Amino acid sequence: MVEGHKSIAEFINSPYRVEAVYHTPAFDSKVLNLSQKINLCEISVTDLEKISSLKAPQEVIAKIAMPEWPVLSQNMLTGQFLLVLDGIQDPGNMGTIIRIADWFGISHIICSEDTVEAYNPKVVQASMGSLARVKVYYVDLAGFLPKIKFPIFGALLNGSNIYQTDFGKEGLIVMGNEGNGIRPEIEKMVTKAVTIPRVGQAESLNVAIATALFCSEINRSK
Amino acid sequence: MVEGHKSIAEFINSPYRVEAVYHTPAFDSKVLNLSQKINLCEISVTDLEKISSLKAPQEVIAKIAMPEWPVLSQNMLTGQFLLVLDGIQDPGNMGTIIRIADWFGISHIICSEDTVEAYNPKVVQASMGSLARVKVYYVDLAGFLPKIKFPIFGALLNGSNIYQTDFGKEGLIVMGNEGNGIRPEIEKMVTKAVTIPRVGQAESLNVAIATALFCSEINRSK
Repeated sequence: MVEGHKSIAEFINSPYRVEAVYHTPAFDSKVLNLSQKINLCEISVTDLEKISSLKAPQEVIAKIAMPEWPVLSQNMLTGQFLLVLDGIQDPGNMGTIIRIADWFGISHIICSEDTVEAYNPKVVQASMGSLARVKVYYVDLAGFLPKIKFPIFGALLNGSNIYQTDFGKEGLIVMGNEGNGIRPEIEKMVTKAVTIPRVGQAESLNVAIATALFCSEINRSK
Repeated sequence: MVEGHKSIAEFINSPYRVEAVYHTPAFDSKVLNLSQKINLCEISVTDLEKISSLKAPQEVIAKIAMPEWPVLSQNMLTGQFLLVLDGIQDPGNMGTIIRIADWFGISHIICSEDTVEAYNPKVVQASMGSLARVKVYYVDLAGFLPKIKFPIFGALLNGSNIYQTDFGKEGLIVMGNEGNGIRPEIEKMVTKAVTIPRVGQAESLNVAIATALFCSEINRSK
């Protein structure tokens, strides 16, 4: 389910299939800028409140079919950077990371099977429509990582300084769980540990913030 | 009010005055690592739940005196970068920005009077103890900015590319409101507009993410 006309418009103009758009009588479907036929269903405000997961629902909710993405292969990914998430738990962080990927032109995110579900309503909300453009995969990371012959950068302590790291032209960037970081089994597969140097005293950086700093550095060196 | 023993420990070891620490019978005050006399008050779990602003309260809450920071002058700030927040509204963003400032060694944040209160419980929570080290001021920005003779960088559209900007050794970095950006009156005072170039398609970056990218660039060029 996707809420709010801005996000819904992004899904309509995406490879996703929009199954239905439920809206209140007050909603003006012109704001969706429809160039294709969409199944519009008028429902009462009370019914919309029932299906919404927001405290203050907007006037419109869309039901989107879950996609089946093509299996990833080395060839499809040449010259790209991919984010790899190892056990991200917080839906707000997950949505923000999807939005960051979209901003920096990263079109694939590979998640461990225990990473929070990208179609969780809080993730969809936090991604601000970017989920319509970024493909999120859930895989057994330990099985997947060896298949892609890219450098594997990992956000770790005691790695090389991010500001002095040459990221090259393609690679995987592994970000770990909020509390525990990258799990040891996956850390072993990292070919280059990279660290964001701390100047002040905060114990840690939020994982979405750290992800943004990695994407920014890759972008700079491309 | 500050919740959780980690954050409380940071306030105890800070210029703030801790007025009292309320804890449940199960709480072991050893985790606070007290080297000074603190007013510890045992209360029931029910009472702690009443004063907590968390859904799942921890075993301990501290009452901290509101500080009075010294008036800022040019001399105090030589060689520093300061964050300036023009109308940030979301407590989660505000807390995250305080944590980012602390990570990057920025010790002062100057806020417009309509910016969300730094002592809002959600801000305190999101700052993860960093509020104990970062001084947050609320001022009339239009009156304050001309008093500090630093370059004033502003996060704006159509500015110079952040990756090609020389931030020098000191300055103010102005970040605007989540929806509306920097207000026109303040934008006029910006001496250097700076833009984070977009590679992909997301409409915008979250303001805390953008703040982190600015802090990172300053850190790099220092």
